[in-house]
Amino acid sequence: MTLQVFNYLSRTVEEFQPLHPSFVGMYVCGPTVYGDTHIGHAKVYITFDVVHRYLEYLGYKVRYVQNLTDVGHLLDSGEDRILKGARRDRLEPMEVVEFYARNYFRDMDLLNVIRPDISPRASGHVPEQIELAERLLAQGHAYESNGNVYFSVAGWPAYGKLSRRKIDELAESGRLEAADKRDPRDFAVWRAATPEHLMQWHSPWGRGFPGWHAECTAMARKYLGLPFDIHGGGLENIFPHNESEVAQCEAAYGEEFARYWLLNNMVTIDGSKMGRSLGNFLNIQQALSGDHPRLSQGYPPLAIRFFILTSHYRQNTDFTDDALKSATRGYERLLSTAGLVRQKLSAAGQSDQAADPEFLTTLEQRQAEFLAAMDNDFNTPQALAALFDLTKAVNTLVNSGQPVSGGTLKVIDDTYRALGGDILGLIPAEITTGSGSAPGLEDELIRLLIDLRTTARKNKDYATSDAIRHRLAELGVILEDRPEGTAWKIS
Amino acid sequence: MTLQVFNYLSRTVEEFQPLHPSFVGMYVCGPTVYGDTHIGHAKVYITFDVVHRYLEYLGYKVRYVQNLTDVGHLLDSGEDRILKGARRDRLEPMEVVEFYARNYFRDMDLLNVIRPDISPRASGHVPEQIELAERLLAQGHAYESNGNVYFSVAGWPAYGKLSRRKIDELAESGRLEAADKRDPRDFAVWRAATPEHLMQWHSPWGRGFPGWHAECTAMARKYLGLPFDIHGGGLENIFPHNESEVAQCEAAYGEEFARYWLLNNMVTIDGSKMGRSLGNFLNIQQALSGDHPRLSQGYPPLAIRFFILTSHYRQNTDFTDDALKSATRGYERLLSTAGLVRQKLSAAGQSDQAADPEFLTTLEQRQAEFLAAMDNDFNTPQALAALFDLTKAVNTLVNSGQPVSGGTLKVIDDTYRALGGDILGLIPAEITTGSGSAPGLEDELIRLLIDLRTTARKNKDYATSDAIRHRLAELGVILEDRPEGTAWKIS
Repeated sequence: MTLQVFNYLSRTVEEFQPLHPSFVGMYVCGPTVYGDTHIGHAKVYITFDVVHRYLEYLGYKVRYVQNLTDVGHLLDSGEDRILKGARRDRLEPMEVVEFYARNYFRDMDLLNVIRPDISPRASGHVPEQIELAERLLAQGHAYESNGNVYFSVAGWPAYGKLSRRKIDELAESGRLEAADKRDPRDFAVWRAATPEHLMQWHSPWGRGFPGWHAECTAMARKYLGLPFDIHGGGLENIFPHNESEVAQCEAAYGEEFARYWLLNNMVTIDGSKMGRSLGNFLNIQQALSGDHPRLSQGYPPLAIRFFILTSHYRQNTDFTDDALKSATRGYERLLSTAGLVRQKLSAAGQSDQAADPEFLTTLEQRQAEFLAAMDNDFNTPQALAALFDLTKAVNTLVNSGQPVSGGTLKVIDDTYRALGGDILGLIPAEITTGSGSAPGLEDELIRLLIDLRTTARKNKDYATSDAIRHRLAELGVILEDRPEGTAWKIS
Repeated sequence: MTLQVFNYLSRTVEEFQPLHPSFVGMYVCGPTVYGDTHIGHAKVYITFDVVHRYLEYLGYKVRYVQNLTDVGHLLDSGEDRILKGARRDRLEPMEVVEFYARNYFRDMDLLNVIRPDISPRASGHVPEQIELAERLLAQGHAYESNGNVYFSVAGWPAYGKLSRRKIDELAESGRLEAADKRDPRDFAVWRAATPEHLMQWHSPWGRGFPGWHAECTAMARKYLGLPFDIHGGGLENIFPHNESEVAQCEAAYGEEFARYWLLNNMVTIDGSKMGRSLGNFLNIQQALSGDHPRLSQGYPPLAIRFFILTSHYRQNTDFTDDALKSATRGYERLLSTAGLVRQKLSAAGQSDQAADPEFLTTLEQRQAEFLAAMDNDFNTPQALAALFDLTKAVNTLVNSGQPVSGGTLKVIDDTYRALGGDILGLIPAEITTGSGSAPGLEDELIRLLIDLRTTARKNKDYATSDAIRHRLAELGVILEDRPEGTAWKIS
């Protein structure tokens, strides 16, 4: 089986074949860095992180470009988002950009999102965006009006090909401020700046700044060439943003823009669209700390990641406290078993022993199911189901009371590392919570305490052994006596 | 006393007075992001981090701008550093930039360097640099030649005012490739690019890229205005880089550039200049891990920071394994006492008690010495000496056997936090190693083991108490029995 993806351009599932065998160019619309990273960002960037990871797993060399929008993204009111953030935080616009860009990467690092290879900024690519506007003017697909450059939608019949909107029906959708547009459907490639507008540059049309859509066209082309393989982003931006990216590029350069459009569905909170005015806006830091009226507790970052992967990226994800709680329990089960396997493997050694052929068959079946699910348009809920089936079999095996060979443990550990770690980003290279085998001091101290307790029990000093168990429990370290010895996990 | 700084512009110590009371604009030349962060970077950015921190301590609101050079910085061979890195690492130039920029910030974070408020990139400010070249051409201070724009040194008599080089003596110092310069002393503001040059932009003079010096002039002006207060950097760049920044700016805009020039001296390794070809090149990651032929061990990041602050920034810093070892011991003494004070304060409570007046006098004297040293051109070795004198007094106090009031402990802790923490960045807000009061699980586990050992000793179960001490020592946790109880530190 080969990778199949749902391509929004054709609205069908297609076999994925990159333009250049073994290389993939991928562009994903990044955040507008004027406020805290929220749970909607978590969904889109975890989605494309898994796409990125799976393509690498399949052997492709991926160049992943994800922009930072730091200029030109206007609110419906016509207000510039960055400048709004600057006023709110009493900072220079570029300080706002730095501040929120750092927070963004901090939060994505916590969610185990591998950083893109290139994170270009709109403000850093003004010449490229001016060149785009100049090309459009030269080709007759744009016109200048009072220092603005507008793309002429009527002159580009392919407009609407991605979003499937009919040009004729768009007549009333233009922005209100468009007094100098020839047609309300037209959109700005370049905007004239008033003198007090803080972020502005010299251009052939006077001082101004790029239109929001221009950056993605210009930067994707610059770093990936035309056409490139995958364009990703949130489905809510298919119109006007993505549609306009395509139109601008293809009208300016006469070349196809992106070949596969992969778009993820939205996030809701308790069933409602998330919105600052609705009181249900959920930052990633709030989800981690639990400091939010809708949450009863904070959630570990990888449990949040796990929760997002329990629904397909093209489905809506509804964040509720209960769903997060339940996902956290599921995630901890997975991690606990993966950690136990490592612990036993480390104790058993002899990973070059032959693996149990019967278990190997089970494991290969579950792995094949996992990969088939991923090949099916990155169906992570199905892939997770296969991983949980595997986990059930692993638990049965290790709790059977029979010895498990180092070779079998090694194959299980390798499988967890590849599927749960490399592809889904859920199982860390070192499991420090759970019944861990990590080499950290914390683990060693717990092991020392377990040894002291074992000695105390042998000496029938139950006061000491109970005290150790009790005080460890107070610290959140739960001991579990098993036939093969005492395991522990952090509650 | 007020802050006095050595201003390289006047070559004298001057009282520091910012242009706008209570605000300071500071620009520091950042790294060229084409290779690993090295120990020379540690010196310059720790130096200006302490300048930044001390100015904030004095009540100034600092805007700290530090660029990332990602284009146009040529080697003496005329080769572009970024493109050289790209060939070496088989990456696109912008991937090289992203990769090393992230490593740079990772390493600086480890060294507890507060991030600049704005980290602008040269490649992100091409229009601003083109504007600079256009201004210079318009003012008759530059000329175009084969698509290059050169600054005309002969026409700017102030050239040399910062570096104190005499223009007439510079005749032979120009680059070799300068066949199209009118005068070998002239330097490029803009360079023509050959078609195969990977980073290039459209300009009024054809496709090209900015000269190395242009970015700092353009970006300092953009984010700090003219003139601004402090320009920092490494003394090795005073000529031609800093000199050319000043000349370009003042010739183009007719306004003063920077008012105070603060430049740090260099780093040597075992007495020799550091160089890749000399086999003594020391990355920060190598210093941390000890994975380097000249090092016997790895060093904690804050011990490296401490070591750098034990010499004045205008002095040379010689890195040797022995000096780092000795600095690490000194740093651990400081941290151990600061941690002990916190531990006792946390145990004593009652921080609202009156402080011991006699000790308060000692403490105020040491603090005054510390601040006087900092006011004396950021004399960190003298400031550290005052902090160690304080530490000696603190150790005498807490080891006297007499009870120390919560109020006294609180004042000592506050002083450590302000001088050692806020200003020098050496004492973390939470001390997790050393005899710590940090709330981490590790500390709690150690505390539990100490309690078990104490109980065992009371019960004359010396086998258990010795086993605990011994096994903790194996893990690097050293117990110290003191009259007031058992303290611990991590070796």
